[in-house]
Amino acid sequence: MKREKISSNVIRRLPRYLRKLDDLAYNGVDRISSSELGRMMGLTPSQIRQDFSCFGEFGQQGYGYNIDTLRKELSNILGVNCNYNIILIGTGNLGHALIENFGFGGHGFTLLAAFDIKKSLIGTQFAGVSIYDINSLPEFLAENKVDIAVLTSPRRSAHSTAALVASCGVRAIWNFTNIELDLSDPNVLVEDIHFSDSLLTLSYYLTETSANDADEK
Amino acid sequence: MKREKISSNVIRRLPRYLRKLDDLAYNGVDRISSSELGRMMGLTPSQIRQDFSCFGEFGQQGYGYNIDTLRKELSNILGVNCNYNIILIGTGNLGHALIENFGFGGHGFTLLAAFDIKKSLIGTQFAGVSIYDINSLPEFLAENKVDIAVLTSPRRSAHSTAALVASCGVRAIWNFTNIELDLSDPNVLVEDIHFSDSLLTLSYYLTETSANDADEK
Repeated sequence: MKREKISSNVIRRLPRYLRKLDDLAYNGVDRISSSELGRMMGLTPSQIRQDFSCFGEFGQQGYGYNIDTLRKELSNILGVNCNYNIILIGTGNLGHALIENFGFGGHGFTLLAAFDIKKSLIGTQFAGVSIYDINSLPEFLAENKVDIAVLTSPRRSAHSTAALVASCGVRAIWNFTNIELDLSDPNVLVEDIHFSDSLLTLSYYLTETSANDADEK
Repeated sequence: MKREKISSNVIRRLPRYLRKLDDLAYNGVDRISSSELGRMMGLTPSQIRQDFSCFGEFGQQGYGYNIDTLRKELSNILGVNCNYNIILIGTGNLGHALIENFGFGGHGFTLLAAFDIKKSLIGTQFAGVSIYDINSLPEFLAENKVDIAVLTSPRRSAHSTAALVASCGVRAIWNFTNIELDLSDPNVLVEDIHFSDSLLTLSYYLTETSANDADEK
């Protein structure tokens, strides 16, 4: 079924809901009202009901949400059960950190392989994940179904690497290179993690708070 | 001057504008119209004008924006020139990656020091940044003005570390622990980078696209 276009603000709240529900389930909670959930997440109950109503009716008046059911629904919506295969390109410090600490498997994804240009890394493994020569990437992509490529390669090779994986049929790129990728194929999805945007946002709020504090003195 | 409350969507676009303007300046461009800038960033010219108008009048009808001036204005708004001091707590793979590759200095921040619990790391340096014993943190914070603490420590110590830096007067936390910090002090700002939220958002769009593709067949 083709879904109605849903605002990206709603989409970006879904993983937060799922994280909170996972926490609650872990702590043995089995149901929750929209007002309790809202209080925990700094959202209004009506916003929560509105967010979920984009996808169906998950709650019940007077009962609230069954946490297990809601987790399953959200997981489905987010594609967590689609068994997406992932490769990672660039096994420097950050790539290394993601392979060892992110826990792709725990989030429902399979990290198939990693690629690098550095001779000393090729043929080794991090946390059970083999590192292959970047030159073997097209061959690997021809032989394996890969849904998402994680780009943790250096900035200078970001564009060429992104273009390569896109030309080999990978449809989604998780981009850590701090470069805005300008892909010719509009069907390739790109999700950026711009560390600097996040730090500058924090810096904005810190500056704003300091200005307000100074005013109040 | 106390600023009007500005929506977080606007705030989060400011670092993106600054990045784009830095790119343009680097490529020798010295002025740009809101329509050109909009085309490059996937925004409408009126949205751009509206975003900037929250902070003042930076453009000129018929001329557009002077890129150098606009960069300076945005840098000021984002607190880039406030010389904020930063410490980083937890020098595992991710902390290591940030120290070596993020380039705090290039973004206008000073990374003063890093802290860890691991005896083998204490007393060493990464990229010129000294790593101190986490137990010396309160003393360090008493002696140095620290504005922002980067949390790259393990999940299990996230809450206690956050509470410690907050109690020592640090007013902003850049949180990479994938834990929602629940600080008792509402005056401490927290900016989260949740890697999993980002990957699940990408997974959502990939799933949505696949569903639409299947419909069209």
